[in-house]
Amino acid sequence: MEKKKINIVEVGPRDGFQSVKGDFIPTELKKEIIDLLIDAGVKHLEYSSFVSPKAIPQLADAADVTEYVLKKYPDIDLLALVPNMRGATNAYNLGLRKVCNVVSFSASHNKANINRTHEESLNAYREIRETYPDLDVVLDLATTFGCPFEGKAGKYSDPAAVVEFLAPYKEAGMTVVNLCDTIGIADPAQVRATITAVQKAYPDLGIQVHIHDTRGLGMANTITAVECGVTDIQAALGGLGGCPFAPGASGNLSTEDTVWMLNEMGYDTGISFSKILAAAKYTAKMIPEGNYSGHHITIEKETPCCF
Amino acid sequence: MEKKKINIVEVGPRDGFQSVKGDFIPTELKKEIIDLLIDAGVKHLEYSSFVSPKAIPQLADAADVTEYVLKKYPDIDLLALVPNMRGATNAYNLGLRKVCNVVSFSASHNKANINRTHEESLNAYREIRETYPDLDVVLDLATTFGCPFEGKAGKYSDPAAVVEFLAPYKEAGMTVVNLCDTIGIADPAQVRATITAVQKAYPDLGIQVHIHDTRGLGMANTITAVECGVTDIQAALGGLGGCPFAPGASGNLSTEDTVWMLNEMGYDTGISFSKILAAAKYTAKMIPEGNYSGHHITIEKETPCCF
Repeated sequence: MEKKKINIVEVGPRDGFQSVKGDFIPTELKKEIIDLLIDAGVKHLEYSSFVSPKAIPQLADAADVTEYVLKKYPDIDLLALVPNMRGATNAYNLGLRKVCNVVSFSASHNKANINRTHEESLNAYREIRETYPDLDVVLDLATTFGCPFEGKAGKYSDPAAVVEFLAPYKEAGMTVVNLCDTIGIADPAQVRATITAVQKAYPDLGIQVHIHDTRGLGMANTITAVECGVTDIQAALGGLGGCPFAPGASGNLSTEDTVWMLNEMGYDTGISFSKILAAAKYTAKMIPEGNYSGHHITIEKETPCCF
Repeated sequence: MEKKKINIVEVGPRDGFQSVKGDFIPTELKKEIIDLLIDAGVKHLEYSSFVSPKAIPQLADAADVTEYVLKKYPDIDLLALVPNMRGATNAYNLGLRKVCNVVSFSASHNKANINRTHEESLNAYREIRETYPDLDVVLDLATTFGCPFEGKAGKYSDPAAVVEFLAPYKEAGMTVVNLCDTIGIADPAQVRATITAVQKAYPDLGIQVHIHDTRGLGMANTITAVECGVTDIQAALGGLGGCPFAPGASGNLSTEDTVWMLNEMGYDTGISFSKILAAAKYTAKMIPEGNYSGHHITIEKETPCCF
């Protein structure tokens, strides 16, 4: 029987690097880590953001990295985050043809995160779509499952509300939505209900998930999404990223842990576990100030335990 | 609709305390933490082990704690671990009527852990059963899903082998088996296959699971067991325990994280999340040298994140 294919979308170089405090991560090191990722079998890579260097100093070299990856990896599915029209223009002019654009399901988080109303975000999405019709624009729906200010009751636990929120984006030509558990507050029942509702409402819409591990449910929510039929899973090398104010607990879902689970379960991720683990360990060594949630990188050796 | 009930079997005072390096945890503190657990709603408690104080110095006060809990909590489902006949006799003579007895599915791990062959372990189990017919004896099947020496290929990925191994125990009167992922190496597909096979072979056998979070799959494996119909889930307060040689990664499944997930999903655990979290935080404060894998205890505050 042919193995079922799962596409891992590696977001470490974007969502991981952006939150590293301290020294600027040298561009050459970024490129080196990207090389390791591709060599491990990564085929889908969110490699940077076109954002204000004031807002996210770590990704000030987005243009440089873009030129590098576009030239070296023409066959890899490459994308970068663009928060606005300016970012989209910069990316497009460098030759990139796939981006993601973010809006928060939470109005208060959207204001705090990108200083926009929901209407302004929708208009910006439409403008990007209309200006660059040949640009793939994944919609990152931040705080799909809960908000740091509003919790997870109300609309966050009402799949119909998510479906309704997506309607104007669908009308504007959205082909892929990335349901983001930005603060790691989702539970498997909620993930299942939300995905099922979106699938039913928009059968031709591509669905990805972007899960954080804040409460230890990262893998449970991810496997639930896979069981619902989602084939595109975002994850970050070493679990680097997430919120640096919840030490030890709040990183992204770790790519190598996810690959280990899916490979063990008989899915085809196309990624070598030993190579991706080596890449994660190397990253943790070279960027020790990062916030890592990955488990495999901390396993020194097996021990017999007692009872 | 009535909520489905899940019984959390709290094992922190046994599996958590036993592995704490450093100073002896004062008996009064153990009793205090047990009080907090019961007050939070815990109804099933593995509170200590009747083992050699040389092997496990932290649990040298098992008799004292037994007298305390039997007197104070007659309505709680109490049990202690007994590795052998001597432990069973000590527990029985104090009035305890429920214990667990451990054998490793891995012959090499059984030898390393309790210095016995499989035949010797089976004989000891039979002797306990025959000597104390009114003593409930849960069988802890350590390394059900993989072994620190042997990996997880071969019989660990062959549910029929687990079923076969359990047959003589079933004949000897086993009513409950606790399938233990001792080193945290299971994956959801393996958990599902193993549980389903055991359920099919022994429809009247009670099944519990005891999951470690070494590779970040603790919650994914647990929710898979629940989906298979398992209603008795072991967990340890704060995720205290596991293997101290895999820093930060290898604790038990955390009770408060598990309660949070199940409560959020609409299951009835009967446990107050805020109270069990407070108990976990208190434990981590009072026993700072412990190895904790719990996520909620590390969350300081929600933050807006960026994108």
